[in-house]
Amino acid sequence: MEKTQFTTPVPVKDVRVHDSFFSDLMKITVEKLIPYQWRALNDEIPDAEPSYCMRNFKIAAGLEQGKHGGMVFQDSDLAKWIEAVAYSLIWNPDAALEQTADEAIDLIARAQLPDGYLDTYYILNGIENRWTNTKDNHEMYCAGHMLEAAVAYYQATGKRKLLDVMIACVAHIASVIGPEEGKLHTYPGHEVLEMALCKLYEVTRDERHLQLAKYFIDERGASPSYFVAEGERNNRPVNPRSAFNLHYYQADRPVREQDTAQGHAVRAGYLYSGMADVARLTEDDSLYEACCKLWYDITRRQMYLTGTIGQSAMAESFSFDYDLPNDLVYGETCAAISLAFFAQRMLRLAPRGEYGDIMERVLYNGSISGMSLDGTKFFYVNPLEVDPIRCEKNHQFRHVKPERQKWFGCACCPPNLGRLLASLPGYLYHTSGNTVFVNLYTTNDLKTKLPSGEVALSMKTNYPWDGKISMKIDAAPQEMLLALRKPGWCRTFTLMVNGAVADYTLRDGFLYLAYSWSAGDCVEFVLDMPVETVRANPRVAEDIGKIAVQRGPVVYCLEEPDNGKNLQRIYLQADAAFACRYEPEALGGIVSIETDGEELIFASWDDDVLYDGQKSPSFQPRHLRFIPYYAWANRGPAEMTVWVREKL
Amino acid sequence: MEKTQFTTPVPVKDVRVHDSFFSDLMKITVEKLIPYQWRALNDEIPDAEPSYCMRNFKIAAGLEQGKHGGMVFQDSDLAKWIEAVAYSLIWNPDAALEQTADEAIDLIARAQLPDGYLDTYYILNGIENRWTNTKDNHEMYCAGHMLEAAVAYYQATGKRKLLDVMIACVAHIASVIGPEEGKLHTYPGHEVLEMALCKLYEVTRDERHLQLAKYFIDERGASPSYFVAEGERNNRPVNPRSAFNLHYYQADRPVREQDTAQGHAVRAGYLYSGMADVARLTEDDSLYEACCKLWYDITRRQMYLTGTIGQSAMAESFSFDYDLPNDLVYGETCAAISLAFFAQRMLRLAPRGEYGDIMERVLYNGSISGMSLDGTKFFYVNPLEVDPIRCEKNHQFRHVKPERQKWFGCACCPPNLGRLLASLPGYLYHTSGNTVFVNLYTTNDLKTKLPSGEVALSMKTNYPWDGKISMKIDAAPQEMLLALRKPGWCRTFTLMVNGAVADYTLRDGFLYLAYSWSAGDCVEFVLDMPVETVRANPRVAEDIGKIAVQRGPVVYCLEEPDNGKNLQRIYLQADAAFACRYEPEALGGIVSIETDGEELIFASWDDDVLYDGQKSPSFQPRHLRFIPYYAWANRGPAEMTVWVREKL
Repeated sequence: MEKTQFTTPVPVKDVRVHDSFFSDLMKITVEKLIPYQWRALNDEIPDAEPSYCMRNFKIAAGLEQGKHGGMVFQDSDLAKWIEAVAYSLIWNPDAALEQTADEAIDLIARAQLPDGYLDTYYILNGIENRWTNTKDNHEMYCAGHMLEAAVAYYQATGKRKLLDVMIACVAHIASVIGPEEGKLHTYPGHEVLEMALCKLYEVTRDERHLQLAKYFIDERGASPSYFVAEGERNNRPVNPRSAFNLHYYQADRPVREQDTAQGHAVRAGYLYSGMADVARLTEDDSLYEACCKLWYDITRRQMYLTGTIGQSAMAESFSFDYDLPNDLVYGETCAAISLAFFAQRMLRLAPRGEYGDIMERVLYNGSISGMSLDGTKFFYVNPLEVDPIRCEKNHQFRHVKPERQKWFGCACCPPNLGRLLASLPGYLYHTSGNTVFVNLYTTNDLKTKLPSGEVALSMKTNYPWDGKISMKIDAAPQEMLLALRKPGWCRTFTLMVNGAVADYTLRDGFLYLAYSWSAGDCVEFVLDMPVETVRANPRVAEDIGKIAVQRGPVVYCLEEPDNGKNLQRIYLQADAAFACRYEPEALGGIVSIETDGEELIFASWDDDVLYDGQKSPSFQPRHLRFIPYYAWANRGPAEMTVWVREKL
Repeated sequence: MEKTQFTTPVPVKDVRVHDSFFSDLMKITVEKLIPYQWRALNDEIPDAEPSYCMRNFKIAAGLEQGKHGGMVFQDSDLAKWIEAVAYSLIWNPDAALEQTADEAIDLIARAQLPDGYLDTYYILNGIENRWTNTKDNHEMYCAGHMLEAAVAYYQATGKRKLLDVMIACVAHIASVIGPEEGKLHTYPGHEVLEMALCKLYEVTRDERHLQLAKYFIDERGASPSYFVAEGERNNRPVNPRSAFNLHYYQADRPVREQDTAQGHAVRAGYLYSGMADVARLTEDDSLYEACCKLWYDITRRQMYLTGTIGQSAMAESFSFDYDLPNDLVYGETCAAISLAFFAQRMLRLAPRGEYGDIMERVLYNGSISGMSLDGTKFFYVNPLEVDPIRCEKNHQFRHVKPERQKWFGCACCPPNLGRLLASLPGYLYHTSGNTVFVNLYTTNDLKTKLPSGEVALSMKTNYPWDGKISMKIDAAPQEMLLALRKPGWCRTFTLMVNGAVADYTLRDGFLYLAYSWSAGDCVEFVLDMPVETVRANPRVAEDIGKIAVQRGPVVYCLEEPDNGKNLQRIYLQADAAFACRYEPEALGGIVSIETDGEELIFASWDDDVLYDGQKSPSFQPRHLRFIPYYAWANRGPAEMTVWVREKL
């Protein structure tokens, strides 16, 4: 493999986050999201569609009578909940919660069939039909999520029960699917098991686990297509003209030949994450190259400014390069999360700052926008431009909601956000040998082991509202190499070590500090954080003649409660003067940005004249207040826009 | 009824059009469209989905064996064909074509059941189920179109056979549906029978025919809802949250309480046309007021510049006031046609120029855009902004095609255009007493009877390319009042009678000329026809900061073959100098418009940079060539836009 330097995330247990930004989100996760989801899984939320999830497991375990309820992938909701619980137990021990999780795991174990099979949909709906619809029926998706939960729970608690359940389940899958004659030559219709198996392998070091992941990656998109044949067997042939064609499944070509992100965005993000894991664990050049091409395509051609991905509601999918409609976007919260997963895995393959940049972009914008500030309501779709009446009255926009919803029948996004937020400490640092890579900036304490000794470091900052970051080394091996990500958004900075201008090397977006470290050393990193007006590549037709406001990693928007209606009439000069103010009471504590824009007006346009060749528009001043994008829609349904017309 | 002056269209037989614009379209209709459609109806088009239409009738008539094929409303395709044939026989007698139509009518008569019922879907699929799904199964829609065909064929040829078939069919319907106890209190799921019955009444003067139309109008939307109850009986309940709720059918409220055009746009246009007919024939004030409100809502708030209506592909429907997305539009050809129908009927209710304005807007733009210049390919959807790659790769835009198609499985639009074009002479003049209203300007001869005598008039013009219109009175009663529509787009004009400046009265958009007419009198009407840049009401968010180019009644567009790619980067000053040139060889003969615009460019934007905070755009000159909107997409798939960014 092309010589790159692999890096390893510092695990959640070695990092304690206690800032005023992510800590709040993590607190919400344990105080609101996890208990709320538990009630949802148990059908205890009034006025919400029942989940049936726990009930399905109870019936499968022989404890209750009844039929399967909910989606074919309903099991995965419990898996994501356990995974979120697992991470939270590391930084927020809670014996009662752990016991609840243990009992849920007991139930899962009872529901498992003696041969290792575990999927309540088929256990309850006719086990003779299992493995007949691997394209659409999510058996491997559910197994993948449960496997991720099992690994996390084992790492958090040391308890093996769910891990053993899932090792048996994986053994069953490997007995049914694989390259050998007589086995099904298929792969997950909805990917996630690939990366889950890599996590399992990193715990078990059992080559069979890695080989199954590699088989899924290698077999995907092979000709003749297993999915096409399976679709025909089920009398549901794959229609190449439909949005649910092989592209939808990333299965039209072998993955190494794919160079454009395509199809269902969450599936794509999970697949690419799994590819990156397999590329690293098998040191596979061609697979690494495919990952790089797909990364490149997403982040240079198909990603919204907010880190949101998936342009089309039809099939929740990518569309094509530079197609980025702001109002019609799908931008599923889960898809943004999958991009964070992919970014971290690319960072494991090579320490390049750009992977951290995208991780940061997703974490501060298009993922956490999926949750209300109080942690009780959720977006599935994360638009960059909204007019509430359009969401209501133009059915083409019905997927876009101007308000977060309580829960969803297809409740994939809220628990996915839960497991991301609960595992957030695990994104801050990577290591490679004696090098410590600092990916994200937030107030936290790190205490982990390097080959040559323990490192303890405390970081203090008011990031993302302020660019000043202070690090104090409490312990470190002398030969530690400290590598600080220079954010892509940052153009000028000051870096000091122990009060003197630092001697650093900038390589691939990281500032390497090669010092003889000792306890008490201080690093001061001050990122200049002016307001920036950003433009999109002129190939993005939607954003031509528009600018967006960004400060540090935070993308801003105009919202109706601050600015009134008719946001699309607003024009702004790129070099306008911006006033930033930290407002601790506003929207959970934000830096707001105010400026003077202009509004395009007509002196007297009669509401009852639709077209006119005589009237000329003019501009009048309009004061503008921008808020962080993630904080929108916390004050009732309202117009919102990220991109604003540029006064040229 | 509020005193308005009713007007009556001068029938097709009294007007001979021989211009170089509509005549070409009419010629295409008889030479291409009618023969092509006949082959389509008979499943003789290679590589096209079979229609099954004639086959269904043959099976129903006992002449062939087999099952029903095609849509539930497939019969209506034959109806529209016969109607188009009927009009064409008036101005283009063709014995062979008439014989073909006679034979088709014989077949229809043989397919009819003894009790008058006529719908091949139920005749072939189980007659016991007829009238059980009036909401969705189009029995009355097919009857309505066949009735329109029957009246037209009777008026064109004097032959009563199809008329008698349909009088019997109507009698059957009236025996099943109506206000009396024991009858179904329902109304057409897809409207058209209402206006067809009014046409029938104007031939038969049989009050029962008018009363049935009035019953449908009065009963529609009554509570409790027949459609809701029927949906429940059929285990297909109406879902109020779906796009196919009662709004879709214009049946959520009584029609007199409806003031916003809603639901399926073609259904809506046909309903409102029927309402206008019933309002006139029953002199019903409240119904007239409802028509006015709905007209007002469509033309002031929901109509594209091209006369296109129906903003949403989801349910082919209206969305809401001022919501006019140019790229995502549905804009079905049939919907624009229905607006022309509604316009003419409003003109019958009151001689107001604005009704003629909209008729003209539809006829020169959003209806004929549905057909290729050679009459062989058709648009269902008529967008105002297209990027071909988006149509292909973003599934949300899959309804928008960058090229006209050969034919459709649901072939409603091509034959609808056929019957519109074949009946075009019938739109030119209305009369009321001794007043002759000139609605449209095109080279033609009129010869018709007024109460006080015959009027013969010949008009010569190169409209819409030139605003000069010459009318010569060949015969006229002395007391004729000549009323010329002053187009809404026209700001200055010269009007001369016999070489002297005319003495006219302008009232409601018509210029009334009260002269003592005699043979040899000449009227010269010169409409100044500068290029105009038009803006949309600032409530139309999609068009903010944009202008469109219009000249006379013709809306223009930029297309890629003339202007290259990336049309969305173009900016234009509203007061730019425009050069108009008549080009007889271009696109069937057009006036093209050239001007100097500008392109927003970035000095060097790397394709691999998606967002940038440092680069500034600038403008560079870009020569622009506009062509008439209706003529777009005749040179292969290409970018197109009607609205262009305004350089402010």
